[in-house]
Amino acid sequence: MKVTYRPIGSIHSPFTDLKDMPIQPTREASDPGIAEVLPEFAAGLKDLEGFSHVILLYHLHKVRRVDLAVTPFLGSESRGVFATRAPTRPNPIGLSVVELVRIEGNRLYLGNVDILDGTPLLDIKPYVPEFDQPAAARAGWLEEARGKVRSAKSDDRFR
Amino acid sequence: MKVTYRPIGSIHSPFTDLKDMPIQPTREASDPGIAEVLPEFAAGLKDLEGFSHVILLYHLHKVRRVDLAVTPFLGSESRGVFATRAPTRPNPIGLSVVELVRIEGNRLYLGNVDILDGTPLLDIKPYVPEFDQPAAARAGWLEEARGKVRSAKSDDRFR
Repeated sequence: MKVTYRPIGSIHSPFTDLKDMPIQPTREASDPGIAEVLPEFAAGLKDLEGFSHVILLYHLHKVRRVDLAVTPFLGSESRGVFATRAPTRPNPIGLSVVELVRIEGNRLYLGNVDILDGTPLLDIKPYVPEFDQPAAARAGWLEEARGKVRSAKSDDRFR
Repeated sequence: MKVTYRPIGSIHSPFTDLKDMPIQPTREASDPGIAEVLPEFAAGLKDLEGFSHVILLYHLHKVRRVDLAVTPFLGSESRGVFATRAPTRPNPIGLSVVELVRIEGNRLYLGNVDILDGTPLLDIKPYVPEFDQPAAARAGWLEEARGKVRSAKSDDRFR
């Protein structure tokens, strides 16, 4: 079985190379960006402006391989890819929770992005704490890396 | 441009009909479920067990149309589809943050699911508060619906 999607737009960011990108959209290491939807989908953005954050789903279009075992940026041990956010996944779908600053027409101005310029956008969802925020969450092997993520940057390991 | 993915497995749940499903994986209205990955991808689950929650991405395979304006379960006004979690999106990708109870081989036992039985699974990501949980989030038009979501159930409006 195959599933086929067509991008609804694309992401504009200052990051034109996988190297030196922030690994997540945290304030210290990342920069503002724009998610632009195709004009035919702009009507779907109605009412989104009241949300402070959105969830972006996008196609990691520069990833050329699948690795089930990866050594992530945070840490030195090999981990199962589904226990990481590494891009070399069987289906390279990226997910970022980003701050929505404002909307102008078909463009969403985003506070912080960790996404490569030109990345095809698949979906935009409103971030809803009641749906998306568990009361207490434990981050497995990443617990020990907490605090490092805000300044960590990408290199070319997943190219 | 088209993007093609192949499901990594499927989701097993008590929900065999879109009608009467919980609309989100909140404890009161939902039931335990299982995410089963194909044996070839089981190695990618290594180290996931330490996480209390996972993010599931899946293909909403029963959705047959796109509506840019929808009247969601929570509320009576028409909203832009990207300001809702309705399934009639240009790319019908579902996202749920669910509790991970345990892993046995290639099966993830999940605390609460809001997903139709047999739904094709596209990706599993660890839920990491530092990546996925903004410090303060405002839920736009959904603010007034907070509290209703825990008991709300689906009907056949998005069939």
